Amino acid sequence: MAARRGEFETIAALFRPLTRGSRAALNLVDDVAVLSPKPGRDLIVTADQLVVGIHTLGDEPPATVAQKALRRNLSDLAAKGAKPLGYFLTIARPKSIADRWLEGFAKGLAADGEFYRLPLLGGDTTATTGPFSVSITAIGETPTGKMIPRSGAKQGDDIWVTGTIGDAAIGLDAIRKGNADAYLKRRYRVPDPRVEFGPMLRGIAHAAIDVSDGLLADLGHLCAASAVSAAIDANAVPRSASARKHGDLARALTGGDDYEILFAAPKAASAKVIRAAARAKIAVTCIGTIAKGKSGAVRVAGAEFTLKRAGFTHF
Amino acid sequence: MAARRGEFETIAALFRPLTRGSRAALNLVDDVAVLSPKPGRDLIVTADQLVVGIHTLGDEPPATVAQKALRRNLSDLAAKGAKPLGYFLTIARPKSIADRWLEGFAKGLAADGEFYRLPLLGGDTTATTGPFSVSITAIGETPTGKMIPRSGAKQGDDIWVTGTIGDAAIGLDAIRKGNADAYLKRRYRVPDPRVEFGPMLRGIAHAAIDVSDGLLADLGHLCAASAVSAAIDANAVPRSASARKHGDLARALTGGDDYEILFAAPKAASAKVIRAAARAKIAVTCIGTIAKGKSGAVRVAGAEFTLKRAGFTHF
Repeated sequence: MAARRGEFETIAALFRPLTRGSRAALNLVDDVAVLSPKPGRDLIVTADQLVVGIHTLGDEPPATVAQKALRRNLSDLAAKGAKPLGYFLTIARPKSIADRWLEGFAKGLAADGEFYRLPLLGGDTTATTGPFSVSITAIGETPTGKMIPRSGAKQGDDIWVTGTIGDAAIGLDAIRKGNADAYLKRRYRVPDPRVEFGPMLRGIAHAAIDVSDGLLADLGHLCAASAVSAAIDANAVPRSASARKHGDLARALTGGDDYEILFAAPKAASAKVIRAAARAKIAVTCIGTIAKGKSGAVRVAGAEFTLKRAGFTHF
Repeated sequence: MAARRGEFETIAALFRPLTRGSRAALNLVDDVAVLSPKPGRDLIVTADQLVVGIHTLGDEPPATVAQKALRRNLSDLAAKGAKPLGYFLTIARPKSIADRWLEGFAKGLAADGEFYRLPLLGGDTTATTGPFSVSITAIGETPTGKMIPRSGAKQGDDIWVTGTIGDAAIGLDAIRKGNADAYLKRRYRVPDPRVEFGPMLRGIAHAAIDVSDGLLADLGHLCAASAVSAAIDANAVPRSASARKHGDLARALTGGDDYEILFAAPKAASAKVIRAAARAKIAVTCIGTIAKGKSGAVRVAGAEFTLKRAGFTHF
């Protein structure tokens, strides 16, 4: 076994720098963080866990494991229109994980902390007899009452999605087959949560969700929460050239881990949606319409396949 | 393998009831919670992880695993003078964990949710190839600026501790030897965080920490953060009859997991300390004095043993 720092040395060497001088983190001295919320803001909080070998293939570089864990949480916040403020981290470390691997993990968090200007606020490190796992609780904010719910979609709303769909799942398949290109590898390993665009949807989108279980499953969640149904045109769903080359439409519509935003907005807001996307320098595509019927059903036109499973679960 | 509910069924059956109707939890529909902090309050946040077989022996009833996981976080909040508001939960579940075990786990959380009037606000469930683990992020509140830090201890302060010290570690030893009594078993498995007393220390204690790594280690942390040192009388440290019977003084002073509050308060406040403890119906004992010297050193009088290790770490 390689030389290993103890718990307190690890915190000092690897994690304290990730606080970026945030006053709320109390320099990681107090086992707690102190948030002093601004008046007129709600705090939006989400918690997600990543287990190496379950949510990753197990041989990813440690930096991208860290980035995937953090970015999945940022995607949850973005889809609610929230601006991220900071995060809490607990890690469980098996004996097989050397200090060097953990340094790579911390470097991934440091890079994203810099990119998103996001401090680590607190956490816990522990041993485990299982695989390396990381649980992150991320905190963001919106103006009071302005969170974008899943439950607000209305009949006649356009259904939009950011970016391209299916890259992560088709990338995973291609990595397993050994023929993934750099684009698909990146899309599977390091999602690009729509952190800038999400808050722009406040006051525009009626409902939103991030695409993590798969486009059809997540659209089903949104429709069920809104007591509506949906009709989409499968051929309108944006797919990258790599995804078209390496996978089919069914895999794109049902694969998970895209971390794009799927949202419903009134037809009258379509020009606003397009302008916001241009400002955020991302693509948005209208793929269908919210329909009558409270069932949460999603009808798919233009696709000649049978869905084997509606979603994607790691449980 | 026993029949298993899927992820969404598990959330609906076991976890949704734990929200206790909290508006902030959004009925666990949105993957986020919304906190609308009251003006004049700080939010105090802590994150802790429990891995079965590391932080527990591995054969505890699921309800007490849940309670230990939650109560460790409540202890962190109590030691900072914070009143708990709610918690986020991520669990990693191996295939060997049957629905029935998970139901017991949820019952433990339900019982404590009732006892502490504490809602589940959100979380994540996932599979793992390792042991069952639970990561909790708990959120509490204090009036703005009133958190009790580790770093405020001053020369001449009395050093106090709640309850009795050493029961959890000596209980663990006795469980392993097969001769633990019911009191020690309970003290090891289900800590009794000083949730009511902690907030009473606001405006009284200069500094506080919960005893989780061991009395001497945690007093060392408090002194180091405060740039002071400490002198305690080992014979003044309160020990239960069971702890005296089953373990020695060294084990009591260095064992972890007591989840009592160790705090420094000015001598002039001692009557207030004693009145607050009486109101909270708990014992408090003065065990020493904060001394000169910025080293964080802890001098122990009245004990004739050599400390083999200063603290307690699971890392």
